[in-house]
Amino acid sequence: MAIKLIGYAQTLHTRRVILTLNELGLSYELEAITEIQTTRTEEFLANKHPFGKIPVLCDGDFTVNESRAICRYLVSKYQKDAKIVLIPNDINKASLVEQYISYELSYFDPPLTKILIQEVFNKRKGEPTDEAVVKQAREEIEKVLDVYDKILVGKDYLNGEYSLADLFHIPCAHYICTATPHGDVFDKRPNVKRWLNNLRNRELMSPYTI
Amino acid sequence: MAIKLIGYAQTLHTRRVILTLNELGLSYELEAITEIQTTRTEEFLANKHPFGKIPVLCDGDFTVNESRAICRYLVSKYQKDAKIVLIPNDINKASLVEQYISYELSYFDPPLTKILIQEVFNKRKGEPTDEAVVKQAREEIEKVLDVYDKILVGKDYLNGEYSLADLFHIPCAHYICTATPHGDVFDKRPNVKRWLNNLRNRELMSPYTI
Repeated sequence: MAIKLIGYAQTLHTRRVILTLNELGLSYELEAITEIQTTRTEEFLANKHPFGKIPVLCDGDFTVNESRAICRYLVSKYQKDAKIVLIPNDINKASLVEQYISYELSYFDPPLTKILIQEVFNKRKGEPTDEAVVKQAREEIEKVLDVYDKILVGKDYLNGEYSLADLFHIPCAHYICTATPHGDVFDKRPNVKRWLNNLRNRELMSPYTI
Repeated sequence: MAIKLIGYAQTLHTRRVILTLNELGLSYELEAITEIQTTRTEEFLANKHPFGKIPVLCDGDFTVNESRAICRYLVSKYQKDAKIVLIPNDINKASLVEQYISYELSYFDPPLTKILIQEVFNKRKGEPTDEAVVKQAREEIEKVLDVYDKILVGKDYLNGEYSLADLFHIPCAHYICTATPHGDVFDKRPNVKRWLNNLRNRELMSPYTI
């Protein structure tokens, strides 16, 4: 069955799925969405995503949306035939992967997203950067990365072995480094720096690098 | 092995885990955290949660934190011996449960949390309610619930059968109904109303109902 990814390779959510597809060695067709109106049609809302969001994955007759749910689906279905383990079979190890996925979503992503909104998305729309928001978000991510630096002592990856949790951190962190002047927050901490360099090398290998 | 839940039954994150434990028919000991300082000790940060958050689950020697990761762990480990299925074994069905879990996290929870902050948590601290924030959050959740009402046409639960995705919606929705004057947003839509009444009956059966 052919895998079709409906999305836009320049968005972080779509990139998360592309990285997972690449890691699992899966071939797929990318149906590029470049106009938001495409996601507001009756057909899209009824059959692809009721909230009009991307990415959406169609695997034969089966459709699933929301990037992290799509990635979990791909792992559940295709990891057994892949050369990589993104979610271990061991229940305890898999649960710690979910724990670190939650760290990304709850602590790592929010301040970095605030920075991207101010430094990239607002600028693109011709809106001013709110320096106070950037300053507060920087303070927030500095504290979060202090914790990450401790988690990563003596470890190459959050859960010891590379996993879907590490992968989920890549798109946002890479984008901060390439599109804003705030990549220095990662370099100040030796374990975070080492970890992220490893992860960004995976991103840089991707055919759709931002 | 004894299950110990470290948390505070009055918080939504801890309640999410308690509901999952109850649904799976698991007995556990609740170690109540009532002072935030308890989560700031060196021991807690090193061994329980590096960000100083609750809940944390200890199952014998194994420790996992972050409420949604804890719930997934409990399902992975104990569902096979339970009378209920919270995540189906079928990969496609399980992936749609994850999709609906993502809806809860991305679309349902954020506006309701804004309302709770203004109407409950700020009031508790003696801070004023920002009516503009409440108004905007209400507009936001109204749009989200319009979509939910369509998703729930002809269905008792999001994924057809009751699942962890429905369960994750319970604590926040129930709290909105009991602690704020905004429960009416759920009653206006027939499918949402029916769905949520079913879910809230489960909450009301819990020994730790808020």
